Amino acid sequence: MSDLLVVGSVALDSVETPFGKVQEALGGSATYFSYSASFFTAVHLVATVGEDFPEAHLKLLADRGVDIRGLQTSKGRTFRWTGQYGYDLNEAKTLETQLNVFAEFRPVLNDVSGRTPFLFLANIDPELQLDVLRQMKERPKLVALDTMNFWIQGKREALRKVLAEVDVVTVNDGEARQLASEPNLIRAARAISAMGPKTVVVKRGEYGALLSTEDRLFFVPAYPLESVYDPTGAGDTFAGGFMGYLARSGDLSDANLRRAVIYGSAMGSFAVEKFSIGRLLEVTKPELAARVADFRRLVAFEEEL
Amino acid sequence: MSDLLVVGSVALDSVETPFGKVQEALGGSATYFSYSASFFTAVHLVATVGEDFPEAHLKLLADRGVDIRGLQTSKGRTFRWTGQYGYDLNEAKTLETQLNVFAEFRPVLNDVSGRTPFLFLANIDPELQLDVLRQMKERPKLVALDTMNFWIQGKREALRKVLAEVDVVTVNDGEARQLASEPNLIRAARAISAMGPKTVVVKRGEYGALLSTEDRLFFVPAYPLESVYDPTGAGDTFAGGFMGYLARSGDLSDANLRRAVIYGSAMGSFAVEKFSIGRLLEVTKPELAARVADFRRLVAFEEEL
Repeated sequence: MSDLLVVGSVALDSVETPFGKVQEALGGSATYFSYSASFFTAVHLVATVGEDFPEAHLKLLADRGVDIRGLQTSKGRTFRWTGQYGYDLNEAKTLETQLNVFAEFRPVLNDVSGRTPFLFLANIDPELQLDVLRQMKERPKLVALDTMNFWIQGKREALRKVLAEVDVVTVNDGEARQLASEPNLIRAARAISAMGPKTVVVKRGEYGALLSTEDRLFFVPAYPLESVYDPTGAGDTFAGGFMGYLARSGDLSDANLRRAVIYGSAMGSFAVEKFSIGRLLEVTKPELAARVADFRRLVAFEEEL
Repeated sequence: MSDLLVVGSVALDSVETPFGKVQEALGGSATYFSYSASFFTAVHLVATVGEDFPEAHLKLLADRGVDIRGLQTSKGRTFRWTGQYGYDLNEAKTLETQLNVFAEFRPVLNDVSGRTPFLFLANIDPELQLDVLRQMKERPKLVALDTMNFWIQGKREALRKVLAEVDVVTVNDGEARQLASEPNLIRAARAISAMGPKTVVVKRGEYGALLSTEDRLFFVPAYPLESVYDPTGAGDTFAGGFMGYLARSGDLSDANLRRAVIYGSAMGSFAVEKFSIGRLLEVTKPELAARVADFRRLVAFEEEL
């Protein structure tokens, strides 16, 4: 079992979907990621919050065993995001973004986090992602990176620079096409691989996920939920399951990457069942195992006799 | 091996995609369906064309062994459709529809077609679909129906009436949601089942297909093509493979329905590789077998040791 480091955001999210709403709930990429990954391995979190950040939220992560010593409390208010989803839950409409202390976030690794063998660079400025890589005292065994349209458009060069140094990238359909300037998703994944990351994971929301490696392609459907309440954080929860599973096993073979995608998908499917990390707080190991088993049933077919 | 009857359209399609265009190429739901199904079983076609319909097109179907005695040649011009696709190949933009002789189409079954054990009611007016069912001298072993938003919106009652009498319905995502008035796809499929058809096949274009039966759900991804030239007819080609496979085996078990979805997906993946039925003309049985084997590799993952 190897330790896992995530550098990203911790936020207060206000979200409205057709099924309800929450005000200033615990959110942020590093939150979802670390909570999800904590099912599998020891997680270190590097992020920043303001002085107004509720103590109870910190406790949720700490109780889960997440190492939050890298969570800086900065002078000012915590990063806030306000978003809305319509019936097409694949697309969030951002109503307001208050960066607050996140605008001045400069990740600082210490002697422990700087030697973590598994690293997830959550969706932050690619210049900061590169800075984190530079702070690593040893090259991690596996580095994964998440990004978004904002950086692909606005900081393409910096993004290309950090991409050249990572092993795995996680993006959604549209981001993959935008990053590669290629409408065909399979060719887009290949083009992104040529930029550096040998493994490309495309998150496709209600359509599941695609894993593209040197060897082959692997598809997994989304878990067929009858009630999706809030897709916020699903991608980061997926990444937490994916990286957590890999860190726990230490096995980076193609076969294990596929299994990691299944575990990531299972974790992501829990995330959307309640607002914030509400559903993740309840998940048990037997529930997770049952959902993983369901994934096999969803795609299995027997050959003709 | 059982015979299979399709009632639908034979058309001349003019299509433009980012990758090229064709003028008055062979098209129509019954065309794609019957050509695809002919890989598996004996197919009878009931449709109508105008006096202007090229003899060469008829020959393509006849050479393939499709029984075209039910293809009426009516006074007037053949049904013509002109459409365009952008880079999002999931959505066709209809530029022009000339119904011509198709506007007056009244399917007439004869003593052979009226006793066919497998029936596919392609996308036509639900009143005609019901009329075909009424003309069957024996209730077929399996009846499948395809429809579209136009009928769901404009002829909902007639559609509900025929749906109550069929076994399988094939629709796309949006149509499933519209038909069920339900944004969640899994609940939509269940709601459609409650209208009659025990089996619901949702065609999701580049996202594959979903099979919903009483027992369970089954997902298959789309075949990862690097070059998609023209999606026209993919759904009907899928249906041809699906129904053809079932008619050949005569086995309507859940396990066999899943296999049929794989064969349908394989056939559909060929259809989009060239304009019109161009690619289908070339497909060999070993090619089909190889593609079916690929589908297993695309979703297979081994359990943890």
